[in-house]
Amino acid sequence: MAPHPLADQLDLCIPTIRDLEFLEQWRPFFQPYHLIIIQDGDPSRKVHVPEGFDYELYNRNDIERILGDKAWCISFKDSACRCFGYMVSKKRYIYTIDDDCFVAKNPSGEDINALEQHIKNLLSPSTPDFFNTLYDPYVPGSDFVRGYPFSMREGKPTAVSHGLWLNIPDYDAPTQMVKPAERNTRYVDAVMTIPKGTLFPMCGMNLAFDREAIGPAMYFGLMGEGQPWGRYDDMWAGWCVKKICDHLDLGVKTGLPYIWHSKASNPFVNLRKEYKASRCFAALCRAVPRCKIIPFFQKVQLSEGSKDVFTCYLELAEKVRAGLGHLDPYFSKLADGMVAWIECWQKLNPKA
Amino acid sequence: MAPHPLADQLDLCIPTIRDLEFLEQWRPFFQPYHLIIIQDGDPSRKVHVPEGFDYELYNRNDIERILGDKAWCISFKDSACRCFGYMVSKKRYIYTIDDDCFVAKNPSGEDINALEQHIKNLLSPSTPDFFNTLYDPYVPGSDFVRGYPFSMREGKPTAVSHGLWLNIPDYDAPTQMVKPAERNTRYVDAVMTIPKGTLFPMCGMNLAFDREAIGPAMYFGLMGEGQPWGRYDDMWAGWCVKKICDHLDLGVKTGLPYIWHSKASNPFVNLRKEYKASRCFAALCRAVPRCKIIPFFQKVQLSEGSKDVFTCYLELAEKVRAGLGHLDPYFSKLADGMVAWIECWQKLNPKA
Repeated sequence: MAPHPLADQLDLCIPTIRDLEFLEQWRPFFQPYHLIIIQDGDPSRKVHVPEGFDYELYNRNDIERILGDKAWCISFKDSACRCFGYMVSKKRYIYTIDDDCFVAKNPSGEDINALEQHIKNLLSPSTPDFFNTLYDPYVPGSDFVRGYPFSMREGKPTAVSHGLWLNIPDYDAPTQMVKPAERNTRYVDAVMTIPKGTLFPMCGMNLAFDREAIGPAMYFGLMGEGQPWGRYDDMWAGWCVKKICDHLDLGVKTGLPYIWHSKASNPFVNLRKEYKASRCFAALCRAVPRCKIIPFFQKVQLSEGSKDVFTCYLELAEKVRAGLGHLDPYFSKLADGMVAWIECWQKLNPKA
Repeated sequence: MAPHPLADQLDLCIPTIRDLEFLEQWRPFFQPYHLIIIQDGDPSRKVHVPEGFDYELYNRNDIERILGDKAWCISFKDSACRCFGYMVSKKRYIYTIDDDCFVAKNPSGEDINALEQHIKNLLSPSTPDFFNTLYDPYVPGSDFVRGYPFSMREGKPTAVSHGLWLNIPDYDAPTQMVKPAERNTRYVDAVMTIPKGTLFPMCGMNLAFDREAIGPAMYFGLMGEGQPWGRYDDMWAGWCVKKICDHLDLGVKTGLPYIWHSKASNPFVNLRKEYKASRCFAALCRAVPRCKIIPFFQKVQLSEGSKDVFTCYLELAEKVRAGLGHLDPYFSKLADGMVAWIECWQKLNPKA
């Protein structure tokens, strides 16, 4: 049996609309951990969780009851609802995984304990200030290469560990349509720090983070029912998280561990979600493909006075309102959502 | 027999103090290419080149004869002399490799054609503006992931391909001493772009570049005989090259291909070279380990008016003089060397 580091300090957070039979495959790795399940969609449906798992389950009614008149800040009918679990957890670390992700095998044919690798990533430093060409310098058999500044070798605390996917890659709808048969078979045996100042597409499928350090910035935005766009929940969180990690000198890693992603979502549904016809379609169509949002995030600067994740996130919310609100009223609503999210977080986590 | 792309557009550049028997192992891959050999050290010694290779060889007397009163800008008794080869080449691309680097094997046990992989890297775009989590999006079986901005998917031209090393890793002297038995056995099957704004330790052991795009910035500085420090020749070039690539919107890749690095240099000799006792030892000791040079390169900005590699490099030379000259007179001399290097390049390449 594999060791279960941090079993008392980490919650698994799973958004789902179906029975959780996928947990059977993960049993040897997940059973010692506590699960927070966020039921996505119809709250009257009963979600089946295999025997023997320690879990709490929240549906829409629970979210409404707990958050009251601020429940609107949590998306409905979208896996973005998962971030509610980050808020109700009482643990230091979170690992979130989609319910169509299974245990992958490494090139030697062994099952990959994804959670154990995420924990290694989170507990060892990051190197955001200078690129190490041999990748993670802290793993056995590796180190900093010649020329890596000695003063930077202690690294920075790691806040995020972004894992990857074998089999079905995380493509957007147009790429899915163009390459329906493409499978990711390349096992890249590396973990690396995404350098300071560089944004990345953060996927929520296989993601771990230090909830104390960065949790309040892990808001998955307003998606799903009643919202004009979709499939950008984790991307939105990633842009916000990366800016704040850079500002607070925290590291973001990507690479190992891989999970086996079994099922591509329907590209036609995805296309509709990504470019859903709505009164702000035109604005978003301009905004996303022509990149007005990415340049905003690339340029936005947080002030020196913002010294913790809460003040950073509230400052960012106001900058989103001021910098993107003119593109579409959606962004002002999203800024309101960001503020409401922090208020909810602080109410549920009074010590923070 | 493997194909030999760019055989008429690429020169191999090899610095050496010994006979080039290592070429025997590379024969199937290198023989169709032209070799420029720069003899490092005593010019009276005859360097043996195996039969059948097309080469030109320059020793110190040749460098003195060709560059005249500016020959001092090329290092003597140091592998930094290799950059003379970049200047005398008439080709579009350069691949430089150390004479203790042999053919590595991939995990399937096949010989790696390092040069072919470098050419693939150079001929496909880079993605310096946004990180792609599945690494190189242009290789078969990969693509841009969901959330990667569509407007950035054409990428930028690639100027540099930095390859890695199996067996003996490129460590500094203190790390070599602490880990004398460490070998790099991890084959990371990836090529990635080093993001814009991030510096990296560029090793000259296994390095290819577009000479037209960035060659005039590939100056390996003043090292070896008569100079106060050593083992920073390629690092110096790397810092300059990366800043200029970032400014000119050119990409720098690292990762595949691997070569087999056979012999670690003597860590005691390296320690002396890296921290050679001299009148500027104290200044460099402050400057390097406490990182006054790296912050200078991280912060230095090239002006909008510098629109090609020549003007960028000359501007950088003056900024080195102004920004680092106070640390030690060496840096003013180095700035002079950078200017002399460009003058020599332009004289030998009048069309440029």
